Amino acid sequence: MVQILPPQMQSAKKTLGQYLFDCLKQEGITEIFGVPGDYNFSLLDTLEKYEGIQFINGRNELNSGYAADSYARIKGIGALITTFGVGEMSACNAIAGAYSEEIPLIHIVGSPKSMDQQAHKLMHHTLMDGDYDIFRKVYEHITSYTAILTPENAEMEIPAAIRMAKQKKKPVYLVVAIDLVMKPVIPHNEMMAEPTKTNENSLQAATTHVRQLLGQKRNAVIMTDMKVLRYGLETAVQKLAEQLNVPVASMMQGKGAFDESHPQYIGMYGGAFASGDVRRIVENADCIIAVGLLWSDSNTAAFTAKLNPLTIVDIQPNSVKIGDATYSSIRAEDMLNALQTIGYKETQQIPAASFPYDTVIGKPEQLIGATSYYPRFQRMLKNNDIVVVETGTFVYGMSQIRLPKGATYIAQAGWQSIGYATPAAFGACIAAANRRVLLFTGDGSLQLTAQEISSMLENGCKPIIFVLNNKVYAIEKYLNVKTVNQKYNQVPHWKYTKLVEAFGGQAFTAEVRTNHELEDAIAQAEIQNANKLCIIEMLVHDPMDAPDYLHKMRSYLEDQEKRMHE
Amino acid sequence: MVQILPPQMQSAKKTLGQYLFDCLKQEGITEIFGVPGDYNFSLLDTLEKYEGIQFINGRNELNSGYAADSYARIKGIGALITTFGVGEMSACNAIAGAYSEEIPLIHIVGSPKSMDQQAHKLMHHTLMDGDYDIFRKVYEHITSYTAILTPENAEMEIPAAIRMAKQKKKPVYLVVAIDLVMKPVIPHNEMMAEPTKTNENSLQAATTHVRQLLGQKRNAVIMTDMKVLRYGLETAVQKLAEQLNVPVASMMQGKGAFDESHPQYIGMYGGAFASGDVRRIVENADCIIAVGLLWSDSNTAAFTAKLNPLTIVDIQPNSVKIGDATYSSIRAEDMLNALQTIGYKETQQIPAASFPYDTVIGKPEQLIGATSYYPRFQRMLKNNDIVVVETGTFVYGMSQIRLPKGATYIAQAGWQSIGYATPAAFGACIAAANRRVLLFTGDGSLQLTAQEISSMLENGCKPIIFVLNNKVYAIEKYLNVKTVNQKYNQVPHWKYTKLVEAFGGQAFTAEVRTNHELEDAIAQAEIQNANKLCIIEMLVHDPMDAPDYLHKMRSYLEDQEKRMHE
Repeated sequence: MVQILPPQMQSAKKTLGQYLFDCLKQEGITEIFGVPGDYNFSLLDTLEKYEGIQFINGRNELNSGYAADSYARIKGIGALITTFGVGEMSACNAIAGAYSEEIPLIHIVGSPKSMDQQAHKLMHHTLMDGDYDIFRKVYEHITSYTAILTPENAEMEIPAAIRMAKQKKKPVYLVVAIDLVMKPVIPHNEMMAEPTKTNENSLQAATTHVRQLLGQKRNAVIMTDMKVLRYGLETAVQKLAEQLNVPVASMMQGKGAFDESHPQYIGMYGGAFASGDVRRIVENADCIIAVGLLWSDSNTAAFTAKLNPLTIVDIQPNSVKIGDATYSSIRAEDMLNALQTIGYKETQQIPAASFPYDTVIGKPEQLIGATSYYPRFQRMLKNNDIVVVETGTFVYGMSQIRLPKGATYIAQAGWQSIGYATPAAFGACIAAANRRVLLFTGDGSLQLTAQEISSMLENGCKPIIFVLNNKVYAIEKYLNVKTVNQKYNQVPHWKYTKLVEAFGGQAFTAEVRTNHELEDAIAQAEIQNANKLCIIEMLVHDPMDAPDYLHKMRSYLEDQEKRMHE
Repeated sequence: MVQILPPQMQSAKKTLGQYLFDCLKQEGITEIFGVPGDYNFSLLDTLEKYEGIQFINGRNELNSGYAADSYARIKGIGALITTFGVGEMSACNAIAGAYSEEIPLIHIVGSPKSMDQQAHKLMHHTLMDGDYDIFRKVYEHITSYTAILTPENAEMEIPAAIRMAKQKKKPVYLVVAIDLVMKPVIPHNEMMAEPTKTNENSLQAATTHVRQLLGQKRNAVIMTDMKVLRYGLETAVQKLAEQLNVPVASMMQGKGAFDESHPQYIGMYGGAFASGDVRRIVENADCIIAVGLLWSDSNTAAFTAKLNPLTIVDIQPNSVKIGDATYSSIRAEDMLNALQTIGYKETQQIPAASFPYDTVIGKPEQLIGATSYYPRFQRMLKNNDIVVVETGTFVYGMSQIRLPKGATYIAQAGWQSIGYATPAAFGACIAAANRRVLLFTGDGSLQLTAQEISSMLENGCKPIIFVLNNKVYAIEKYLNVKTVNQKYNQVPHWKYTKLVEAFGGQAFTAEVRTNHELEDAIAQAEIQNANKLCIIEMLVHDPMDAPDYLHKMRSYLEDQEKRMHE
């Protein structure tokens, strides 16, 4: 099955660079992140004159990659430009992270002049062995598609790469020699493969199977996970949930995929570590319709999640598994729509599940701690907020927060690269200039990528940044049950509120130690962030301060350790 | 040819981790750089109890990799510990850089439990596809050796990897599952291959060839380059130079390989861009004994270096090329020693070559500029200083400085990754606690890796840091001759002297605008740096301020651009 390229994708007289940016603009990309370097000049020169896409300088390539990842989580797709060798090799973690977390990202690399490459000259930014294909080979392992662009193949390769990124929800890699960017592309009437379609027989069989399964059941639940977000299945899931009238739980990596203000939402299912109510409801369900599920350690709370495989209808983007039967070639959206028609409707009330941070506790003059600040965070959230959460104790605590309507939740709960969240908050500010962005990060993590606060200042971004200052990599201390007081888990004591001054900018800053000070700082930040970036440094007294989720995880790990030595 | 492992390398009852650190200690490694992560706990826990090697926390993995690279340049070999996926993928640029610049570096990665790997569980920090070998495959492209360590193979693989790093002067990669680090290694009486030896016939033939060539010549010169430093050939080259009594020139990537205070040293040969005197002497020579030469673009000043191949005796680490004849299996040191005996001795005086920054110019009240600050830098240098120079305008200007005796010069003149120098200065401080470390960096570059100043403060390092603040990526503006006033080359205006305060440390800081202020700041820093880190921020008036070398490069690029359009 093929289709003709739409006319606006045809390229008469356009240069390769212009054509590339046309293709990206057509996908809704209005900003591209990156760092200049002498091999990407022609790309950036083209972009600087190009209408409709702005280049957003980052402070380094890893940070720009993270920002582009976060941007893609909001806008559906993102792009990054780096230079050959040094630039692209700095971005590997961001790209591998996008692979792990299923984010469509177009990584564009400018390379040396084609003549110099053909002559195998020993140019700077190379391994000094004349091999110009080596970095693309590196990227083959961490992207779903790579191509070396030329004027001859641009019309095939660029759409193919974008298509691959969108279909697979993965990063792709395009490299182009600096001298070829300004060359006119050579037009092709390229035929494009159509995306996979649902096989109707397969869909009918799967639907019948679910109908039979549900026929005897009375305690169904829906579970939503990461791929609901990545494949844009939120509306289809909500319709189905309302049709079936069953409780809906989320998973850690899929947080935000279901409207958490919805009356059917019961909270996050996280095995032995998260809410006991949710665990009881989910694990006692006699049918679990799981949408976009990823069976990872963080998602399953170190595999303490215990679900009976025979009760699961496992709806994946392009297939459905029910018990032992796999039905291939079914698009998730078609399956979700089909399930609306099977006639199941729960008549019982949605079982009550308490949310751990619904009640604000802790007296005003008391020192802040996880039990007191998480409820205050939940209380301050507003509709349509973008909540960016760093790996560390925050990603576990914030996963238990109930989000307001329209909120976007951004975290790398699977890849878990510390340092991600600060550049990701920058990316979010660029992607959605009119929405409020909140960043929750720890001191250890912030230090990896702190310079992106400078990029936020430079671009007029005004997030509210919470920095949890406990002077250690607290999450690492929780995870290591073999030794204590590791020196290597100590973190230098920065003055986080002074960073902005060093970066030459202005901000509202506050240091808080008590619940009252925190509340006060939040109230002020909510006013001040109309005009400026806000940093609230939270000085916690207990270096092992952490949410309940982590206390449970720690006990579990200690138990395991004991058993190993029994 | 084989040899038995020395007894101290044998491993009865040692754990894998202890054995690994024993091997590294034997190489003279007393510090290992890196960042903790939950998959490297067992490595770091072992190291924390281990006598004789200290773990040095970096602020992120790329920076730790750069620091380890610089450490290796001083101590001969370095090591880095990162965690699986997120950690190692952040360090790719540092490792690829070490490959390009021929630095022996041992990159050790802690990976998930072997049981979880075998079960292909979807653990955090993975690509979520159950593939645990993918990152090692990435590293295969940018290292000379990779291995997955087990208690069974540790005694073979660890010595093999170290040997490879030392012989090839390249990084190597070792990954070990967290649960195997504490397991006792299983001893082997492993046979080790002996390093390549010189073939005596080949050496004699090459020596005879040089004798014949030199028989008719009267204007020989020696040229020293990068591999002299990497293969430790400095003494052999100096002996030969004194024996032959010929002038000695260096190349950019080999700066510091020959004692620049030596009377036979004439300066750096850099084609059309560096000293005219040196160019004249080198290009008019009728025989060039080139030691450890790398024919890269930066080394040859964009290939403007013009040498007659028939006049070159090209001594490489394990081979010699004379005109069209290649003699293999000759170790460079053996060749250099053999050439001492051929009876050539120049009787003329070494031709006079002026050094561009020998004379201090610029009146005290005048604004600083390249012509005035480079001579002042040269004047302030002391014997045994470690001079760390960032890619950007500094690497070109500083290449023309005459170094004092015993100085170590650290720059990535080939790989040229901006951001390298700040972490490299940290690495230098750790490698040589008793030597003075000077860092010359620009604002654009510093911003990529600025947090490593925090690591310096944390470790009591007291370098003198010069930050050239011109608010642009000046080198990029020099290299782009196609467009002007690129927005993308602008750099946020930081207050560099405030950084230390934000990092919670103390420093001597100064902002300088005039020659007098610079001299004053240098004088004060030379006193203050006994007790604290020093930052001198150089606010230059002209954003295109740059050394003569770059003015010549720019003219050359403009000429080329014009010719392209003629």
